[in-house]
Amino acid sequence: MAKKPGIPKGTRDFTPQEVNKRNYIMETIKQQFQLYGFQPIETPSFENSETLMGKYGDEGDRLIFKILNSGDYLRKASEEHLRSKDSNALVSQISEKALRYDLTVPFARYVVMHQNEIDLPFKRYQIQPVWRADRPQKGRFREFYQCDADVVGSDSLWQEVEFVQLYDAVFNDLQLNGVTIKINNRKVLAGLAEIIGAADKLIDFTVALDKLDKIGEEGVKNEMLQNGISEAAIEKIQPLFSFEGSNQERLERLAVMLKDSETGLQGVEELKFIVEKVEKLGTKAARIAIDVTLARGLNYYTGAIFEVAAPKGVAMGSIGGGGRYDDLTGIFGLKGVSGVGISFGLDRIYLVLEELGLFPESVVEQTKVLILNFGESEAFYGMQLLQDLRSAGVKAELYPDAAKMKKQMNYANKRDVPFVVLAGTQEMNDGTYTLKNMRNGEQETLSLEGILEKM
Amino acid sequence: MAKKPGIPKGTRDFTPQEVNKRNYIMETIKQQFQLYGFQPIETPSFENSETLMGKYGDEGDRLIFKILNSGDYLRKASEEHLRSKDSNALVSQISEKALRYDLTVPFARYVVMHQNEIDLPFKRYQIQPVWRADRPQKGRFREFYQCDADVVGSDSLWQEVEFVQLYDAVFNDLQLNGVTIKINNRKVLAGLAEIIGAADKLIDFTVALDKLDKIGEEGVKNEMLQNGISEAAIEKIQPLFSFEGSNQERLERLAVMLKDSETGLQGVEELKFIVEKVEKLGTKAARIAIDVTLARGLNYYTGAIFEVAAPKGVAMGSIGGGGRYDDLTGIFGLKGVSGVGISFGLDRIYLVLEELGLFPESVVEQTKVLILNFGESEAFYGMQLLQDLRSAGVKAELYPDAAKMKKQMNYANKRDVPFVVLAGTQEMNDGTYTLKNMRNGEQETLSLEGILEKM
Repeated sequence: MAKKPGIPKGTRDFTPQEVNKRNYIMETIKQQFQLYGFQPIETPSFENSETLMGKYGDEGDRLIFKILNSGDYLRKASEEHLRSKDSNALVSQISEKALRYDLTVPFARYVVMHQNEIDLPFKRYQIQPVWRADRPQKGRFREFYQCDADVVGSDSLWQEVEFVQLYDAVFNDLQLNGVTIKINNRKVLAGLAEIIGAADKLIDFTVALDKLDKIGEEGVKNEMLQNGISEAAIEKIQPLFSFEGSNQERLERLAVMLKDSETGLQGVEELKFIVEKVEKLGTKAARIAIDVTLARGLNYYTGAIFEVAAPKGVAMGSIGGGGRYDDLTGIFGLKGVSGVGISFGLDRIYLVLEELGLFPESVVEQTKVLILNFGESEAFYGMQLLQDLRSAGVKAELYPDAAKMKKQMNYANKRDVPFVVLAGTQEMNDGTYTLKNMRNGEQETLSLEGILEKM
Repeated sequence: MAKKPGIPKGTRDFTPQEVNKRNYIMETIKQQFQLYGFQPIETPSFENSETLMGKYGDEGDRLIFKILNSGDYLRKASEEHLRSKDSNALVSQISEKALRYDLTVPFARYVVMHQNEIDLPFKRYQIQPVWRADRPQKGRFREFYQCDADVVGSDSLWQEVEFVQLYDAVFNDLQLNGVTIKINNRKVLAGLAEIIGAADKLIDFTVALDKLDKIGEEGVKNEMLQNGISEAAIEKIQPLFSFEGSNQERLERLAVMLKDSETGLQGVEELKFIVEKVEKLGTKAARIAIDVTLARGLNYYTGAIFEVAAPKGVAMGSIGGGGRYDDLTGIFGLKGVSGVGISFGLDRIYLVLEELGLFPESVVEQTKVLILNFGESEAFYGMQLLQDLRSAGVKAELYPDAAKMKKQMNYANKRDVPFVVLAGTQEMNDGTYTLKNMRNGEQETLSLEGILEKM
């Protein structure tokens, strides 16, 4: 009993300040999602295990939280597996449900289940927590929110253009200037692998290239050599290792390098469409930058790949990402539905805004008026003002007990309440209220209407 | 693969319409919580099992969803328990975490863990899902939201007064008139049990009394007799079986009945304070009514007990409830912290608003303008308007593909979009846009600024 309680590792309590700041980010994202025509859906926190298992690779399967069946869950369990303590084999016998690992697979499941009610293209957003049994570390949690917007049922590249604009609009609303939206295309990567004769090694090739930032040119080349890509082949992509210049120049250089790859050139065309449209229409807080080393989530992206980098000077991984996947719902038997989507990294955006001091003060603003309590009849008199303040949309409270004045003032100070109201016998006789400004100590005595007007 | 996917029983997908309606209710509640000075907290979806187990009785323990440990969870399991398939004994060996069952116990845990950062009285609200392995049935789900507001650290009865006002404010905002807020007091029930010499049978007594609505006077009396309460004793509480009249009259009658019980009279005094203050200050959508049969959650309520009934004519159980509990945090070793709180039943309020047609139309309003797509350059021209519409806060979309006109108009109709914009070569040359009102078919050709003004 007396043992101090704790919470599971990798999970968090959120204090009022933190909830308010997180809500500010989520509400900003939500508003733009809606302006862009996305509609909200919500799916259950847990899904049937068969919906989730096998969708995220072996590592993913391992990281999915499984829920124990209710009741006598061992009744039907295999005696042999119990005897041999075969945890793996036993899981599906004692657990039928699992916590959501991301929002994409449940969305695909949703589209398939609701296909008769949905008009394609279907633009949905979803802001819900997900759970992963990952080893917790700084900035990595076992429970965290994902904020996703996806369109299914449209191959149009205008979607990609709009997603870049959507990122820009959100970061502009958050006053987070200097964000870079990096863009690449799976077909460009496939084309590059093709022209160096490593089409079968696309994943190895791109995984190595993706590390350019971290391990440098030599490191990447060594890794490619180790993966059986020849020196002559690597030579052909030499320009990638010093890929500077404007987006226009990068596109031109890529077109030259990829002139013998049909797939590669198509990727360049797609990149070109998106980048040109975005640049012509203009952005506010963000700029778009082609980054051929970007290989994020290559396992299922088939076209555009996005990743958002925080402003220079802020040490933070990507604060968002996404891309196009041609066959989202195929895993649930509905073929030929293309999708494209982006995600906002709530926890990281939070840290960036905190670091740059970008949370508006109003976000953590709480009670504006505290009515002091000098006894039952005074409190009743105060309650009449309180009602009217709240009806007028002013956050207000009555101190609940007729405690010592000092204690009540302390409470107001600690909670940073800007105004307190004092109403004793004098005020009650006069039909007035005394308003004290806690910032500058000024006091004035006003009628009820006077206080309302003042607030 | 081709197997049609499903979701676990007792869980739900929420469509855009449903999410918007649910959010409307939750935002309304949240706004009033904030006006009343409550601050939001959030706690993890799963807690350490020891935090939850044993807090809700045996039945509760059974209904808590347990999460299987990750990795080789059987490694440390007792071979004997595995052999004997002892599901109960094995649980704690293979599962250390469990899904939140309500918001009250996690709140108590939060208060104890954060006691050094919290200034009492602490007014918190929390709107999060909870999970129960209950048998699903109409209106009962395995995952559902709770919307709770509680104050800890204040014995003041003004809290109870404010909670009644808070209920009234929320239901007034939701335009749900005719709600009844029933109120009772544990001390009144204890006093009644005392005067009939059944103080040791308080629970049996109140459980029986609580059924008056369902099984009638005779049924209740029979149940009491079966529980060993004498006929002479039951005679003493005869007035309860036809407990009519105003709150004032009820209070007077209770005071007479309870004249020999100190506890009972204190309960009457508390009821009187709350009811008088509420009635003097006035309510809008709700009325308060003393109901001595109300025994909800008696296991932990120690003072006021609340329950909210939907307007007459709507067949629905309670749409909210709450009460005072004197020792919320004692279970985690922090003694003497009194609490009082209320809860809103989101799912039931939803059904009531739906039945009475009280959801405002604006709640489900989605995209206002759809810009039709006649090809790349036309779309680009449309995008310029689109950007400005969104910047002006108008929900707008571009049809992503240059599909047949009919298909695009169909999409607009199905999604109930009120305006479409047509811009072809003519408009592009003139620098105009043609706006079509989908409701009445009217068309007019306007400049970009003209459209913005119109919206």
